[in-house]
Amino acid sequence: MNRLITLLSDFGTQDNYVGVMKAVIAQIAPATQVIDLTHQIAPQDIAAARFNLMTAYPYCPPGSVHVAVVDPGVGGARRAIAIALADGFLVGPDNGLFSGVLSQRQALEAVVLTEPRYWRSPTPSQTFHGRDIFAPIAAHLSAGVPFTQLGQSIDPATLVTLEIPPWQHDGEAIAGVVQYVDRFGNLVTTIPAERVPVEGWYIKLEETLIPGGSAYSAVRRGEAIALAGSHGWVEIAINGGNAHHQLAISVGHFVQLWAVPQSELHRAQS
Amino acid sequence: MNRLITLLSDFGTQDNYVGVMKAVIAQIAPATQVIDLTHQIAPQDIAAARFNLMTAYPYCPPGSVHVAVVDPGVGGARRAIAIALADGFLVGPDNGLFSGVLSQRQALEAVVLTEPRYWRSPTPSQTFHGRDIFAPIAAHLSAGVPFTQLGQSIDPATLVTLEIPPWQHDGEAIAGVVQYVDRFGNLVTTIPAERVPVEGWYIKLEETLIPGGSAYSAVRRGEAIALAGSHGWVEIAINGGNAHHQLAISVGHFVQLWAVPQSELHRAQS
Amino acid sequence: MNRLITLLSDFGTQDNYVGVMKAVIAQIAPATQVIDLTHQIAPQDIAAARFNLMTAYPYCPPGSVHVAVVDPGVGGARRAIAIALADGFLVGPDNGLFSGVLSQRQALEAVVLTEPRYWRSPTPSQTFHGRDIFAPIAAHLSAGVPFTQLGQSIDPATLVTLEIPPWQHDGEAIAGVVQYVDRFGNLVTTIPAERVPVEGWYIKLEETLIPGGSAYSAVRRGEAIALAGSHGWVEIAINGGNAHHQLAISVGHFVQLWAVPQSELHRAQS
Repeated sequence: MNRLITLLSDFGTQDNYVGVMKAVIAQIAPATQVIDLTHQIAPQDIAAARFNLMTAYPYCPPGSVHVAVVDPGVGGARRAIAIALADGFLVGPDNGLFSGVLSQRQALEAVVLTEPRYWRSPTPSQTFHGRDIFAPIAAHLSAGVPFTQLGQSIDPATLVTLEIPPWQHDGEAIAGVVQYVDRFGNLVTTIPAERVPVEGWYIKLEETLIPGGSAYSAVRRGEAIALAGSHGWVEIAINGGNAHHQLAISVGHFVQLWAVPQSELHRAQS
Repeated sequence: MNRLITLLSDFGTQDNYVGVMKAVIAQIAPATQVIDLTHQIAPQDIAAARFNLMTAYPYCPPGSVHVAVVDPGVGGARRAIAIALADGFLVGPDNGLFSGVLSQRQALEAVVLTEPRYWRSPTPSQTFHGRDIFAPIAAHLSAGVPFTQLGQSIDPATLVTLEIPPWQHDGEAIAGVVQYVDRFGNLVTTIPAERVPVEGWYIKLEETLIPGGSAYSAVRRGEAIALAGSHGWVEIAINGGNAHHQLAISVGHFVQLWAVPQSELHRAQS
Repeated sequence: MNRLITLLSDFGTQDNYVGVMKAVIAQIAPATQVIDLTHQIAPQDIAAARFNLMTAYPYCPPGSVHVAVVDPGVGGARRAIAIALADGFLVGPDNGLFSGVLSQRQALEAVVLTEPRYWRSPTPSQTFHGRDIFAPIAAHLSAGVPFTQLGQSIDPATLVTLEIPPWQHDGEAIAGVVQYVDRFGNLVTTIPAERVPVEGWYIKLEETLIPGGSAYSAVRRGEAIALAGSHGWVEIAINGGNAHHQLAISVGHFVQLWAVPQSELHRAQS
């Protein structure tokens, strides 16, 4: 069976760009299953693409080929690359897109995609490498072409990285930032879920204290709650609401996690 | 061959939630075909989810597994369930999502999903049961795990229902409400299409009379028309327009169907 | 293996319309692969559908079946048709949707879909032929039903056409119009990419001169550039921006391409 291919882009679904990439894949590797991670990344928002690929990767079948195309530098000097990991492959532009996955897993090998025989044609467009280079490369990988044949080997240490400020100890608290806002308006922070204390805890967001809990419904509708989110980071939500809109908080905002017995938190709020 | 799986949710397509569910399914049941019914249910709009699942169900291959996740109570007290029908399976939260399908078909058996060996892991997140419980359960069902092994049997009569006020006779008229507004702004009522008289008829919407017809083009562009809609209910549309916006009518609005010879309708309008 | 089916419509993804079409296909031809080209065509925008189908077609596997449903005249007098080409099939309403593909390729045969045995049922709805006629016809074609059995043969010359004003010589310049605006706000003109001179060139848009280049990054962020676009036409973009919003230019706007040495262009701009 062919390797599964996932697609992630900022192409949206208004145009035929994604469909055309799938059609190109179907011509090269007809039996390949393709899964869309998302194509609704805001145009050119590499950080959001980085987050979505990083958090989807662990759930995909080992050996999958992940194509990610948020590519404002297409046709310019940025490199077109593929990366081999122990449990999958990454294909796309070298602009930091993959640095989320690579913050959690090691790149074993990397290549610049310099072999036109694995492209759709030897004369790719200068504006749509998703169709002309990345999708065909992924299809060939899926169909069994050896990784090292795809292009010229490069040192993975030279890959462009897009680093997110990591969480850190801040006195008694743990400090982080909001790194992503999802469709529900949930605010995903950079504080790892495993830092959440077993005892009571809360998130401090400006002067507001938001109690830690284990489910949205632990607070009343319309109230804010902090959770160990499904992505693996602490997130802030409003039960039945939209934290992004209602708290007017977005990506980059500073947050603190405080461990505190639930009793004290209640006292602090009253 | 594996059973087909359909997915319906309010997850949107901005994030990787739907892709991750498919990746989880692909790991358990690689050969399974997955069809998206929709993921653009408004956040937490159980009634819209109920409608979309009810109206898609009859068109799906017998034996399909239908996963529906609009789940504001995730992680709380609501039950995670699966339901067996004569011609398919339903998997999701017990919050009324399935009561549209169950208003037209009988639940043969139901289980609470209490068997962690069919989840993604024994420690599911408290916020994303779509990924951690419902998708894996559907994949196992698709791959042939017997229904009764998925959990503890419950009486289908105990399932949560979300009832829509049914149509009723109202003097000479038939009364109903708008139960759904689709992407085109068409207003789908609770009046069954089979109640439409062969002779002339119209819909009364506040003080407006809207003629019944058999195609959008039976009226001029910009004019309203009532039809026996493709969903199986009387719907109100504007030819080339958007009835929802232009008539300023939404879900829950009261409507009446009047049978009347076409001649009288014309007289009433002039 | 079955023929691949592509789907294009204005159904959006809010409702279950697209999922239901796929479910109907899966019942008739379970092994068929289906690719969505787009379902986000603006309601009833036949010209945008025409463009998206025309530009996706060349990338699809030979023999594919293309279903396109932007169908404001559904249930009225417009014909339901299928068209056979040397390298594929088109299925949908006869309203001009297919005239983009047919401007580049010859229709070998055409039929009006008059054989109810290849519909979902002999009594189709009057509002959703995508589900009741077009999807089943495509599934039967995919599964091997001979084209000529689908209905009554018609002369391809009688098909409805939606013509776009072609490019033309205009003194020393080449004149065209904006024929499509994509999700990034890129303005796709009717001037073929192969008309782009090897030497310097620019696009004149009202009184603005936009330099021709080979990649978005050939200009600074926020600046406009004209390119030989991936669709095969000259397009106008803003590097890192949205030309549609920032230039306030939309479909139908007049543009001119001027060949000029780069040096003169620089002089003209300063």
